[in-house]
Amino acid sequence: MNKAIGHKTWAIAEGYIPSYGTGPEPAFTSHETACILNTSDQDATVSIWIYFEDKDPIGPYIQKVPARRTKHLRFNDLQDPQPVPRDTDYASVIESDVPIVVQHTRLDSRQSENALLSTIAFPVNS
Amino acid sequence: MNKAIGHKTWAIAEGYIPSYGTGPEPAFTSHETACILNTSDQDATVSIWIYFEDKDPIGPYIQKVPARRTKHLRFNDLQDPQPVPRDTDYASVIESDVPIVVQHTRLDSRQSENALLSTIAFPVNS
Amino acid sequence: MNKAIGHKTWAIAEGYIPSYGTGPEPAFTSHETACILNTSDQDATVSIWIYFEDKDPIGPYIQKVPARRTKHLRFNDLQDPQPVPRDTDYASVIESDVPIVVQHTRLDSRQSENALLSTIAFPVNS
Amino acid sequence: MNKAIGHKTWAIAEGYIPSYGTGPEPAFTSHETACILNTSDQDATVSIWIYFEDKDPIGPYIQKVPARRTKHLRFNDLQDPQPVPRDTDYASVIESDVPIVVQHTRLDSRQSENALLSTIAFPVNS
Repeated sequence: MNKAIGHKTWAIAEGYIPSYGTGPEPAFTSHETACILNTSDQDATVSIWIYFEDKDPIGPYIQKVPARRTKHLRFNDLQDPQPVPRDTDYASVIESDVPIVVQHTRLDSRQSENALLSTIAFPVNS
Repeated sequence: MNKAIGHKTWAIAEGYIPSYGTGPEPAFTSHETACILNTSDQDATVSIWIYFEDKDPIGPYIQKVPARRTKHLRFNDLQDPQPVPRDTDYASVIESDVPIVVQHTRLDSRQSENALLSTIAFPVNS
Repeated sequence: MNKAIGHKTWAIAEGYIPSYGTGPEPAFTSHETACILNTSDQDATVSIWIYFEDKDPIGPYIQKVPARRTKHLRFNDLQDPQPVPRDTDYASVIESDVPIVVQHTRLDSRQSENALLSTIAFPVNS
Repeated sequence: MNKAIGHKTWAIAEGYIPSYGTGPEPAFTSHETACILNTSDQDATVSIWIYFEDKDPIGPYIQKVPARRTKHLRFNDLQDPQPVPRDTDYASVIESDVPIVVQHTRLDSRQSENALLSTIAFPVNS
C-alpha cells in the first residue's frame, strides 16, 4: 500500500506546552506532538504555522516526512524561525505538498502522574 | 496563509465543569475549554449557546476572535447572560460569521492528579 | 437556534465499563457515557445497539432526548432489555429519528486518580 | 440493524507502546488498541500496515472481524509477520474488505496512575 491518503491541510486549534514537568526525561517531558503519516511514495514537505491569541502567526516551520514514513513531531523541538513559547496558548495549521494524516497528542507531566490527550486534527477540504 | 478554514457552526455534545479542583490556580482549576482558531483576515464574531438536560438553552454568549488569532475560551469564564452552572451536564453550539476551527478540551483536577481530555468538535455542514 | 444539526446514525467502536472504581459515588464511579445533543424542535427517539466480540448484538435500548436538550447517557444505567456487562469489550450504534450530535466519554476510576477520554463519535452518512 | 457502516480504509497517525507498565496484568499493561466495529452481515478481513520513522512499513497483519461483531485489537498482541517494536513511534493503516468503524485508544500505565487517550481514527474516502 503506497497510495497517498489524507489531506494537504490540517488544523489543530489546541496547543499548550507547559514549561515544566516531572519524571524521567525525555519520555516524560511535557510535550505537544503532531503525529504525521505520509503513506505516499513521494517525500512530503510540511509547513507549519503557529497562531497566538495576541500576536501575528509565526512560520513557516519546515519539516520533511519521507515517503511511506511517519514523523511524530514535538512542537517543543521546533527552533526555526524561533522556539514555540512555553505556557502560552497557541493553535497550528499544517500544510503539505502531498496528502498526509495528522493526529494531535499531548503528554502533560506537570503533576506526579502524567495525563494524556489525543484527537484527530481537523482535515481541511481544499 | 490567511485564507479562512473550517466551518461556521460547531457542536460539542459533552460539557461539565466540576465545582472544585486541586493544585495551583488558575492553571489547575478544573476547566472546560473551546479552542477556537480563526485563520481568516476578518475578525470573527462567535455566538455560543449552552444546552441542558432539563431547561431551555441559554445564550448567546458573544465572543470576538480577531483575524489570524486563536482564542482558548474557558466556559468557566462566561458571564453574560449568566455563568455556566457547575456540576451540571451541558452541551454547546458555536456559531461564527466566518469559518473557524473548534477543539474541545477539559482539565479535571478534582483529584490530586489532573486528567485531560480533548476532541475535535463536530463540524456542521451549512 | 433550533434547527436540527448532526446525523441520524452514529457509531462508537470503543466501549468498556470496569466493574469497580475508587472515589466518591456516583461522580467517580467508572463510567462510559454517550453525550447526545438534540438542537431541533422535535423530541428525538434514540435506539442503541450494543455489539460484542463473541455474541449477537443486544438492543434496542430506547431513550428519549427532548427538543433543544442534551442527554449525557451512562451506559452503566442501561437496563432494558438487559444491563451492559462489565469488564467486557463492546461497541455501540446509536440511531435517532431526528439528527443529533454524539460524543463519547469515559471516566476510569479503577486506580486512585481518575483518567478521562473523549472523542467525537463516528457520524454515519445516510 | 445489520447494514454495513463506516469506511474500508482508516489511518491512525499516532502509535507508541511503552515497554513497561505498572498495575495488575493484563488490564493495566500499557497497550495501544484499535477498536474495530463490523455491523454488516459479512465477515471482514482486515489488513494492518505499520509505518515507522526510519524503516519500511511492516505488514500486512491479517485479522478477522466476524459479521455483527466488534474486535478490540491490541497492537501489543500482533505477532505475524513480527511483533510491533516497543518504545518506538509508529502509525498504522487499516484496510478492510467490508466497511468498518475504527477508534484508537491507549492506556499508559508507566506511572502509578494510568492515563487514557482515545480518538476516532481517520476515515479515508475511497
